[in-house]
Amino acid sequence: MLDDISLNIQPDTIYGLLGRNGAGKSTLFNIITNRIPMSAGEVTIEGEPIANNDRVLNRIYLMSEGNLYPSRMRVGEIFKLTAGLYQGMDLELVSNLTQQFGLDVKTRFNKLSTGYRSILKLIIALSVDVDYVFLDEPTLGLDANHRELFYDALLDSYAKRPRTFVISTHLIEEIANLIEQVWVLQNGHITINESTEEMLQKGYAITGPTEDVVAYTAGLNVIGQDQLGNLRVNYVYGELVGDRAIPDTVSVSHIDLQKLFVNLTSQEVATVEN
Amino acid sequence: MLDDISLNIQPDTIYGLLGRNGAGKSTLFNIITNRIPMSAGEVTIEGEPIANNDRVLNRIYLMSEGNLYPSRMRVGEIFKLTAGLYQGMDLELVSNLTQQFGLDVKTRFNKLSTGYRSILKLIIALSVDVDYVFLDEPTLGLDANHRELFYDALLDSYAKRPRTFVISTHLIEEIANLIEQVWVLQNGHITINESTEEMLQKGYAITGPTEDVVAYTAGLNVIGQDQLGNLRVNYVYGELVGDRAIPDTVSVSHIDLQKLFVNLTSQEVATVEN
Repeated sequence: MLDDISLNIQPDTIYGLLGRNGAGKSTLFNIITNRIPMSAGEVTIEGEPIANNDRVLNRIYLMSEGNLYPSRMRVGEIFKLTAGLYQGMDLELVSNLTQQFGLDVKTRFNKLSTGYRSILKLIIALSVDVDYVFLDEPTLGLDANHRELFYDALLDSYAKRPRTFVISTHLIEEIANLIEQVWVLQNGHITINESTEEMLQKGYAITGPTEDVVAYTAGLNVIGQDQLGNLRVNYVYGELVGDRAIPDTVSVSHIDLQKLFVNLTSQEVATVEN
Repeated sequence: MLDDISLNIQPDTIYGLLGRNGAGKSTLFNIITNRIPMSAGEVTIEGEPIANNDRVLNRIYLMSEGNLYPSRMRVGEIFKLTAGLYQGMDLELVSNLTQQFGLDVKTRFNKLSTGYRSILKLIIALSVDVDYVFLDEPTLGLDANHRELFYDALLDSYAKRPRTFVISTHLIEEIANLIEQVWVLQNGHITINESTEEMLQKGYAITGPTEDVVAYTAGLNVIGQDQLGNLRVNYVYGELVGDRAIPDTVSVSHIDLQKLFVNLTSQEVATVEN
């Protein structure tokens, strides 16, 4: 399904991997971390191909959606097991976050709710001593307070020990301020690989009477629209024509990252996820 | 865990039921729909107690987190089954939404992803002919596009056939514009039952040098704070003191519903969810 993906992942950067349900985000994570092979294309880290490259792979950690731990193992035992596998794990951070999130170390893995499974996994992901951390839906099942706590902990951890994070999530607006670079995955390809700032600068909502909006946006890259009576909003991704005068009846504003993503990907053929 | 809840649910109103993970939102839904009994307190609909009141209960539909359908039944068969159970189901709406969400009617229930299970259940919830619809985490697993489609479909359906919706979700900011009335569930009690508008009017961020902010907010209902160097934000819920002058160094602004909720409930004892 995924092929011909070309990505070079840079050090000390926070990336957002955005894609519809079923677009292949988890598959891409598994390719990057060498769990499944890719037929064509190449993923490099700091310019080095990752395929079967142990030196690079040892610097990577993937927090995946799957549940990897023995179901009857307790939270505290899972931490100990992980600390044994990953040298240099920050046990003080594990302890602080465990307390802040209210995670009980005596609970068995299979007794944790979806939210607390995510919490356990994200605590480990933030505490292992690696240079590249991949987070697949880290906030699944978390309430608003816990999500805020996670975003704060991530930024705090990044400030103390800069490294690369790649975050995949459906809560796009909530991570818009965290991520420096956006990858949009569509139909098996990375269709956008751009800094968050540049991407936001290219997204516009053109609002006004239908006729005027349609005339003004003719020839522009219109990615979506809303209609309310005769009021029309055309969403544009790309440059506006500098020498084309904006009619008085029409207003131009920027849109947020989630709105931009929704419009960019709404034409995608809907498929049942797997 | 829940007791002494007193609620009267009004016709043609969209409510938001907000609570931390484990606060008991699903339990409350099960009490309201008479699936489990409540030890103390009373829930009424249009003033009528619902306990064992078939006439009222027949006008209620609950979309729950549980998976109620035979695992090998196909989506189309589930629709047929439901149409048989609930007279007057809007089959045209079922068909339109099925197409818009890209749900395949031939897929078996156990082959649907979390997102598409939610989609199947919310299509049914929007299409049954009842006066009170309870939606427990309707957007679980949905991507941003599907969430937007759901919010539009809900408003559209409400406009065509006004009725009551009660929505429980962790994506508070996304439903802030949909809901007219907010219930906050904390420690087994409804601690806030207020119109969204009034609630938002009572939420403030007081920002400035720590000393000035602390002095100005003394005696106010401070529900949370952020600190960055000497810059302090105190979050207040309630009235400001009208005759107390706001220092020039201090700025006062309103906060959004999610921020308000996070601060109101952050002191709650964190517990492992069940």
